[in-house]
Parts: sequence; structure tokens; C-alpha cells
Amino acid sequence: MTQKRRKKVSKRSASLFSQSAWQPPQILTTPIEILTPDQIEDIHNRTLSFLQTDGIEVLSNSVQSLLKSLGAEVNSTTNMVKFDSALLIDLISKAPSSFKLHARNPQRSVNIGGNSNVFMTVASAPNASDLAGGRRPGNYEDFKNLTRLSQSLNVVHAFGGYPVEPTDLPANTRHLDCINDLITLSDKAYRLYAIGAQRIRDGLEMTRIAHGLQDSDLDNNVVAFTNININSPLRIDGAMLDGLVAASERNQAVIITPFTLSGAMAPITLAGALLQQNIEALAGIAITQAVRPGSPVVYGCFTSNVDMKSGAPAFGTPEYVRAAYAGGQLARRYKIPYRSSNANASNAVDAQASYESSFSLQGAIMGGANIIQHAVGWLEGGLTASFEKMILDAELLQSFVESQKPIDTSEAEFGIDAMRQVGPGGHFFGTEHTLERFETAFYNPILSDWRNFGAWQDAGAPDALQRASAISNEILSQYQPPPLDDSIAEALNAFIARRKEEGGVLDA
Amino acid sequence: MTQKRRKKVSKRSASLFSQSAWQPPQILTTPIEILTPDQIEDIHNRTLSFLQTDGIEVLSNSVQSLLKSLGAEVNSTTNMVKFDSALLIDLISKAPSSFKLHARNPQRSVNIGGNSNVFMTVASAPNASDLAGGRRPGNYEDFKNLTRLSQSLNVVHAFGGYPVEPTDLPANTRHLDCINDLITLSDKAYRLYAIGAQRIRDGLEMTRIAHGLQDSDLDNNVVAFTNININSPLRIDGAMLDGLVAASERNQAVIITPFTLSGAMAPITLAGALLQQNIEALAGIAITQAVRPGSPVVYGCFTSNVDMKSGAPAFGTPEYVRAAYAGGQLARRYKIPYRSSNANASNAVDAQASYESSFSLQGAIMGGANIIQHAVGWLEGGLTASFEKMILDAELLQSFVESQKPIDTSEAEFGIDAMRQVGPGGHFFGTEHTLERFETAFYNPILSDWRNFGAWQDAGAPDALQRASAISNEILSQYQPPPLDDSIAEALNAFIARRKEEGGVLDA
Repeated sequence: MTQKRRKKVSKRSASLFSQSAWQPPQILTTPIEILTPDQIEDIHNRTLSFLQTDGIEVLSNSVQSLLKSLGAEVNSTTNMVKFDSALLIDLISKAPSSFKLHARNPQRSVNIGGNSNVFMTVASAPNASDLAGGRRPGNYEDFKNLTRLSQSLNVVHAFGGYPVEPTDLPANTRHLDCINDLITLSDKAYRLYAIGAQRIRDGLEMTRIAHGLQDSDLDNNVVAFTNININSPLRIDGAMLDGLVAASERNQAVIITPFTLSGAMAPITLAGALLQQNIEALAGIAITQAVRPGSPVVYGCFTSNVDMKSGAPAFGTPEYVRAAYAGGQLARRYKIPYRSSNANASNAVDAQASYESSFSLQGAIMGGANIIQHAVGWLEGGLTASFEKMILDAELLQSFVESQKPIDTSEAEFGIDAMRQVGPGGHFFGTEHTLERFETAFYNPILSDWRNFGAWQDAGAPDALQRASAISNEILSQYQPPPLDDSIAEALNAFIARRKEEGGVLDA
Repeated sequence: MTQKRRKKVSKRSASLFSQSAWQPPQILTTPIEILTPDQIEDIHNRTLSFLQTDGIEVLSNSVQSLLKSLGAEVNSTTNMVKFDSALLIDLISKAPSSFKLHARNPQRSVNIGGNSNVFMTVASAPNASDLAGGRRPGNYEDFKNLTRLSQSLNVVHAFGGYPVEPTDLPANTRHLDCINDLITLSDKAYRLYAIGAQRIRDGLEMTRIAHGLQDSDLDNNVVAFTNININSPLRIDGAMLDGLVAASERNQAVIITPFTLSGAMAPITLAGALLQQNIEALAGIAITQAVRPGSPVVYGCFTSNVDMKSGAPAFGTPEYVRAAYAGGQLARRYKIPYRSSNANASNAVDAQASYESSFSLQGAIMGGANIIQHAVGWLEGGLTASFEKMILDAELLQSFVESQKPIDTSEAEFGIDAMRQVGPGGHFFGTEHTLERFETAFYNPILSDWRNFGAWQDAGAPDALQRASAISNEILSQYQPPPLDDSIAEALNAFIARRKEEGGVLDA
């Protein structure tokens, strides 16, 4: 290696933080198939049969009426809706197999479906934590900093929600401030919360302003998404349904996520939990298509198990991984984009958080997930958004992406001349083949520390948690907001002022 | 849940340690194919061409003579041996696709090859570490304790070598004491070191005694294995070759492991490193078949990259994972069992150790490895054997095995009656379907802590490293050696006494 080149390298390593470039998120691996085709058809047929015979609880009069008008059997006393199988299949078949989720910066727009694999932030954690400040209830300052951190990480493609709940903001206007921040502190796509219709409508209006669209353009551009958690077992609640309708009727994306924790909200068996997940997901998907045929919708899988000793949810378990594989197969059975998560149940950013997340991601990525929610920052079963966990997860995600890339076997890559030049017992450091490539040959980690033990000890023996803390702090200290037209900022502020004057969401 | 059942559960959770039962190690996943069939054939053809045109350095006169007698082109001045492609293919084709590795306890015998996936301990670390004592040079006490710990873990199928080097034992008789301990403290199979022929011969004699075999039985029973590291690039050294011959001539197993760290001992490109690995592996495999056609041999892959900033080896990187996938495809191309490793470069048992190991294992397991060396305990690029890392790795291995198991979709598993009984918004804790299954429904972790944050804090907020330490200590405090006939122990002692009187290995 020449002196000049050495210098360049050591200069690069002086900064704590470097990362992979933004790249289109892509599934490069053939998904793992843990279910046989017969098993998938068995689950499918049992799903149809259950929704036809038993049905699902739908806690919205207007959705009940809509479904009844299409031929579903509705009992307005029990709120149970039964779907004739032909009706269900017809509705499901209208869902698109992929769509484009637009961000205000077109370069941050992402495809959902096909071989696209979009990584989204942790969402809705009630607490935040970092090494210096420990764990504290979610607040606005942490919300903004976690948003800045997520914006800064190229491997984060979109916001899965508010990274942490800013519980110090009033609930009835919180969405106005938070969406404003997601627009101004970031240029990536984001989720609107489906707690009633009004938050979705306000969010869509703000997003319309941010994108510089006319109101009528919304119907032809997916600019936002929401997530509908099913109140498993077998219940879809009213506020969620109002939000679903408000999103679907404007052709915005809806993720349907059954909350099937096996042993608690679903049968204790994986087959039972997956069947219930499929029943609930198909019912929710059918409702989106009843509201607006062809509107974008995503099949969500959140199936995991609980610890039967304590009742606490567990994540990144073998059951979680197998459910993530199977969920992908079911979603592909219906040609609907698939959502999974990067979950873990650890209380600390330690080896457990690391392996539970690695397993969750393995299930999600090798299961063919098109969206991975909570891909960065989720800790403690989702009760905490962690700054350091964001850094750890960014490393995991970058590594997963890189480790699935094909191997270049073009002639020069083999380096046969270099082998001959080096000869038995030699080394390759100084060969031309090496010098031509050494700066970009290998994946460059965010967090991994490859110093030898002595050098690492001399530096204070920082473990991965301590290093992640330093990296997170460095990123935040260097953060710059992405450009935004003054006119858009002004229009947003005017809208927010008006809506606050009106009292925000009045039923909150 | 009834009171009686609750009690049973809480009793079980009182012990720090529980683990999965010993089970036949099995590959349950279709290996990932990162190379196309054309790419594999390209690497194959380039390998044949290189070994025919350029050859490899073979630092043993007797092996040179043997290969020359079979038709290889030998230059006794440069020590280069060139293999005619037909000769090479003929030799390689004699290697068996699988074999049984016998342990002194027949229940611990394992198949190598096919869909078998054997997990072996860390080997040859120069240092040991635990939380209480920190990092220290390898010593005999740590050697014995790591052996006891490995024996106690059901997910460890065999000893990949001495878990740590007992550097306080004299080098010329160390193997006598260590093999004696591997026999008496454990009943699992183990490796003999190929540093010259004598250690292999002593080890085979001790193993013969332990198994109660006649000398002639050895040729029909694989009771031990050794590992031959190629001095990459392109050199096979004399001591290693003497050990290889001593093992192969008695029909014992040999793992051929090219030491192809891309950027240092191999080209900086993955294609180049894999080509060199294949050249070196095939040369080594051919030599075993020249010594004894049909003798068991394993294709080893240790390809990783170095950190080009420091020259330090890196493990568990994206390059490592891709090489592990590709290595499996190459080994299967030759129908020879495949060896990979669970490697990482972390200095601490932290999140980095956890994700680097998770990635290495993902590469190995999804790459179809039949043997995973260093599956438990390896830390710091192999420079340290860690007690806590053994516990962490046991969790990773158990989880990987469980997460690849098929999903049972027999009628009762679906729990449809339970779903009907529970109904919308209910929970499954008390249903008969749950009560019948809750004790065994889910994977039971070794290390994961699923308590809620408050309970975890009240318990002193132990992170995974601290918990692993407590578990390791508990296992060691409960350790009992497996039964061994007194007559065997006596015969072993007599052999060791005689060999020590003779001075052990005289050239050491």
C-alpha cells in the first residue's frame, strides 16, 4: 500500500460514522418456504370456511352496512360479519400486488411489493432511552431527535410511525405537530395514525401541501400509509375502522396487522395462530377493497408467542421466525405485499437485543417481507425506542442487505495473476489487484470494532452499547434538515394554526 | 391455568438453566444458492486449470513421492506439485459423501455429511476469559472447565479441538493430558491435532483404548478427526502433512481448511478468495485420497475478509456470509461434507459478538454446513475462548435449530374450537387447548430474559453477559463426569505414564 493511499484510509477512519449509500431496498434471496403448498392451501381453505361460518366482529355501523350491501351476512346485534367465500375471494383479488409510496423527496419514494424490501423506523414506543439519560416516558424532544437520527440513516427508508410517543404534547393536536416534524425534519415517507378519521384527513392534507399536490391528485398518488391493528382475537375496533376508511377512500395505503400473540390473543399453536392471523388479515384486506377496489393494502404478520411463565410477549423466538416465513408464503398466496417486523424483548441493548433482532430480521428478510416495521430502534417488546438500538439495527440491516448480494465472478475478479505474483506463503497486501480495490472491496461497518484487544483496551474497552451511543451523538451533532420550500413551510404552519384554533381532533 | 399447573411452571423457572434435549443434528433448510450453476462450474474449471498449470506447494518429500507415483508432476526443488485434471478428479471422486464419527458413548456418535449439521466447540484459543476473571493466557484449569461446560451443553455435539490451549502444560506431552481429559470429562467425539504424526498416533491409541477396540478395528471405525489448515496462499506445510498422512492412513477423518482471508492470504475479491479456497481444498482432499482412497475428508471454508484499515481479520461480515453460502455449494459440487465456523471479531461478549456470530451461523447453517467449528465459545477472532460466549452461542444454536423446524398443521393444532370458545376480544390463557400444551408449546430459552422492565430492574438489571456468567457458573457447579470403566481409565493412565516416560513427542 502506498503512503498516499494509507493516509486516505486513516483519514476516513477518523470519523466515528460512515454508512452505506441510500439504495433501492431489494429482496435478493429466494424466500424460505417452511409450509408446503398443501399446508398453505389448507390454511387458505380453513380461513374461507371460518369467515363464512363464524365471521369476525366489525365494530362500525357504516362498515357493516357497506359489507352488507356487497352481500356479506351482518348481525347488527353481535356485530359479527360473515363473508361468503366467493365474495371474500373477489374482494381480495382486487388488491394491487405492488404500489409506489411517494415521499416529498422523489428520491426517497419506495416501491412496496414485488422484490422491494422497505425498512421503517420503530413506531409508537411509550418510552425513549439512551445510555446517558436512561429510560424515560416518551417526550417531544426525544421524538424530534429520533426523527433526526432516522432521517440521517440511509438504511431507513420510511417512518413506521412516531418513533416515540411525545406524551408531553396534547393528544388532540399531537398529530399536527408530529406530522409537521416528519415533513420538516425528514424527506422520507411516513405513516399517519388511524385513531379515527380526522387524524388521517389532517395528515393527508398536510402531506398534500408538502408534496405540492392538488387535492384530486391524492387519489392517484399514494403519499402516506396507515397501520390497522386487529384487536385479536377476531375484533376490528371502531376507531381503527374509521381510520381505515379515511385512508382507503383516498387510495392511500393500509397495513392490516393481526395482533396474534400465540398463547394469549391467538391459539398456543403456530398453526392456530397463523390460521387466525390469516382470517383477520383477509377480513381487514377485504374491507379496504370494499371501501375502494384497487386501493393499496399490505398483509401484516406480527405473530409471535408469549412467555407462558409470565404471560409477557416474546420476540425473535424460533416461533417468531417460523411465523415470519409462513406469513410471507400466505401473503404471496394472495399476491399482496407483506409486512413483518424487527422485534425483540430485551430490556437492554445487549447480546440478547442483538440476537433477537437478528432472528427477527432473518425471519422477515428470508420470509420475503416487503415492509419491515420497527426495523430500527425497537427495544423491550416495543415499550422503548432506543437511540443506541437504532445504530445497532442500522448495522444489522446494512449487513443483511450486503450479505445477500450476488458474487461478481467476472474475469478480473478472480485475481489469478495476483495469486501467481504472490505465490506460496506470500501475502496480497501490496499487489496491484489489492491496491486497485482496497478502499471499496469490503463492507464498511457502522458499529463493529475490529481493533485488536490491546488497542481496544487502551481506548477504554468500549462495548457495542457505548460505541453506539457515541455514534448516535455524533450523527445528531452533524444533523442538517433536508431542504423545504418556504412556501410549503408557511402553508403547513397556516394549516396547523387553523386546526389548533379549531381544537384539533375534538373527540380525542 | 390451574393452580397446580402454575406451581409446576414456577418450579421449573427457579433453576437458572434449562436446555433442549440432545437431538441428532440436522439441516432442515434448503441451502441458499448465491452462485449460479454456471458460476460454480467456472470456479471448478479454473481450479482444475490452476492446479494443472501452476500447482501448489507441498512441503513433504514422502507426500511428493506418493503423488508423483500416481502421475502428478513434482518439482522437488520448488516443492510445487501440479495435478493433471483427470488425476485430480479421479482422486476427489474417491472421497466418501458421508461417514459416521464415533464417540466413546455411542449415543454421542454423529453422522458427518448429508443433512447432518454437527456443532463443535471453539478450538485452540490462546486465551480464556470469563466475567469474574477477565482475559488470561490459556491454562489447564480453564481447559478442563471449558471441557466440562461443553460436555454439559446438549447442543454441542463434539470437540473441535482443545477449547483453549493449556499453555502451562509442556508442549511435548500436552496432547496426552488433554486427550485424557476429553475422554474422561466428556463422552463426545473430539479432534486430534495434526502437528506431526506422533500426536495423531498417540491420540488414536488413547481413543482405541477408550472405545474398547482392537487396533485393527480403527481402520473400519472413524473415531477421531483432525483439521489441516492450509498455509494460504498455496502452501501445505510439513508438520500438517505428516499429521494428515497419520490420520488418513488409519481411515480417520481429515478436515481440509484453506486459510483464505481475503485481502491478506487470498485475493481481495470474493471470487478470487473462493477460487483460491477451492484450489487449496481440492489439493488437500486429493492428498487424503492418495494416502488412502475412500478415507473420510471434509471440505473446509474459512474464507473471510480483513479490515483493510488495520489488516486485522474480520468475521461474521457480509463477505463471510456470502463465502459460507458459496463454500457449501462448492463442497456439494464434489459431494464432500462441508465445514464452516461460528466466528466473530468482537473483544467483548456484547451486541457485536452476538450479531457477528448470528451472521456467521446464518451463513453456515443456510449454507448447508455439515460441521460448524467454533460453534460455541469463540471470541475475539479466535484469540479467546469465553465461558459466557459459550452460553450465548448455545442459545443461538438452539434457536437456529428450532426456527427451521416444520410447522405441525394437523387438525387439532389449528385450535378452531378454542377460537370459537374464546370469541372476539377474549384471550386464550385458560382454554383447554392452551392448558394441554403450555408446558412444551414454545422454545424455552437458555439466556433470554423476558421479565418486564420493572422486574428486571428490581433484579439488578442484569444484561445478557451477566446472566451468561451466572448460568455458566451454575452449570459448572452441577457438572458430573460421564461414566467410564475403571479398566479403561487404568489403561489410559498406563499408556500416558509410558509415553511421558519416553518423553512424549520428541521433536516438539
